[in-house]
Amino acid sequence: MSAPEPATDQAPDGASPPSSSAGEIEVLALVAAGELASFARLADDAAHAPELRMRITLSRLAAGELAPLGAVEERARALGADPEALDDSIWSFRELLAEFDARLVPRDWWERLVKTYIGYGIVLDLQRELAAGLTGRSQEVAAAALADKGWGDVVVAALTPVIAAEPQLAARLALWGRRVVGEGLGITARLLAVHPEVAALAAGAAGPWTPEHVTALTGRLTSEHARRMKRLDLTA
Amino acid sequence: MSAPEPATDQAPDGASPPSSSAGEIEVLALVAAGELASFARLADDAAHAPELRMRITLSRLAAGELAPLGAVEERARALGADPEALDDSIWSFRELLAEFDARLVPRDWWERLVKTYIGYGIVLDLQRELAAGLTGRSQEVAAAALADKGWGDVVVAALTPVIAAEPQLAARLALWGRRVVGEGLGITARLLAVHPEVAALAAGAAGPWTPEHVTALTGRLTSEHARRMKRLDLTA
Repeated sequence: MSAPEPATDQAPDGASPPSSSAGEIEVLALVAAGELASFARLADDAAHAPELRMRITLSRLAAGELAPLGAVEERARALGADPEALDDSIWSFRELLAEFDARLVPRDWWERLVKTYIGYGIVLDLQRELAAGLTGRSQEVAAAALADKGWGDVVVAALTPVIAAEPQLAARLALWGRRVVGEGLGITARLLAVHPEVAALAAGAAGPWTPEHVTALTGRLTSEHARRMKRLDLTA
Repeated sequence: MSAPEPATDQAPDGASPPSSSAGEIEVLALVAAGELASFARLADDAAHAPELRMRITLSRLAAGELAPLGAVEERARALGADPEALDDSIWSFRELLAEFDARLVPRDWWERLVKTYIGYGIVLDLQRELAAGLTGRSQEVAAAALADKGWGDVVVAALTPVIAAEPQLAARLALWGRRVVGEGLGITARLLAVHPEVAALAAGAAGPWTPEHVTALTGRLTSEHARRMKRLDLTA
């Protein structure tokens, strides 16, 4: 099942891929793992939806997350990824994202929606930062996978009226949002530490990856997080 | 969000639908609920898959379950279904299917796969029996929704070697398969009792629905179940 696709866009002389493609392949593996994780999370959210229309909407959004997966895998194989090693990479990124999920067990539907919006918002931003160093076809397939598929709007539309109407819930969700971003930044730090080859491709990382890069990246993730909290009218 | 679709294939004189379409709409609601349930179950199976290729395969099969949903809903609305009443019907069938899931908590991956194959096999057969009385466009959309989407083959391919290699596991799975079919027939009985308008459309139910019809239907479901157990080489 994991036979490599024909490497349609490899160098015509059939040379092995340059060693710099190792980081590129790892970033694509992270993107693939992110899609599987988004599918699983939205499907699980759908299964917990309190009414039919929300359930159908979230189920469809989940299904939509899988659409770009094939192209991402195909691109990684075209770059010369060994199929088994690629599967191992995707699986290990998946485990990192599953850990993030396991650490944040929502107590109710509203915490669940905040986790989806805030938590996967930061995971998506992180992936975009790391994919920013991609070019050509890799950049294309990653961009399609990381595009806004509309679940943020769905979640915000569901949460906003409840947050406006119930100050006590809003206070609890603000606290929860801070816990979620804390775990998100924790995952980010772990990912950058364990996968320096991925970090090396990140936006602004021309030259070796330094503590300053990590600080700048964390700053950007935090400010995007603050924007999301503000959109929900929650104290960041 | 639940605004009715234009009733493109209603009678051109705009007359209200005949009362016989009530049963037809209910069967379509059951089919829609079945697709949502299959999506949720396969997505949950995918989330528990022990390795990447199975996870991707089951995630994609889950997504495929949603594809015919829009056409089923559209057809029910074209038959004159009130959007809110239709949502309520789908939701109540969903609850019945969720009860089936809640009663059968698999202890491991293999029991999970047997539950998917045996349990949803019987649920699918039941839906096919009840949809057999549909005609025209309703028949078409139900047939597309209830078509074999290949997950049976995936599950059988995964289970067969393990069952052949581990007699003790095979014995446990045979017991579990019998529990699953018991719950499946229980759900069937409850559905037929609570929804006589659905039962009235079932295969062979020309005229009022009688205990003999129920017996005949149960017999057909049981023999299809036996065929599946045999395919897994489990004692029915």
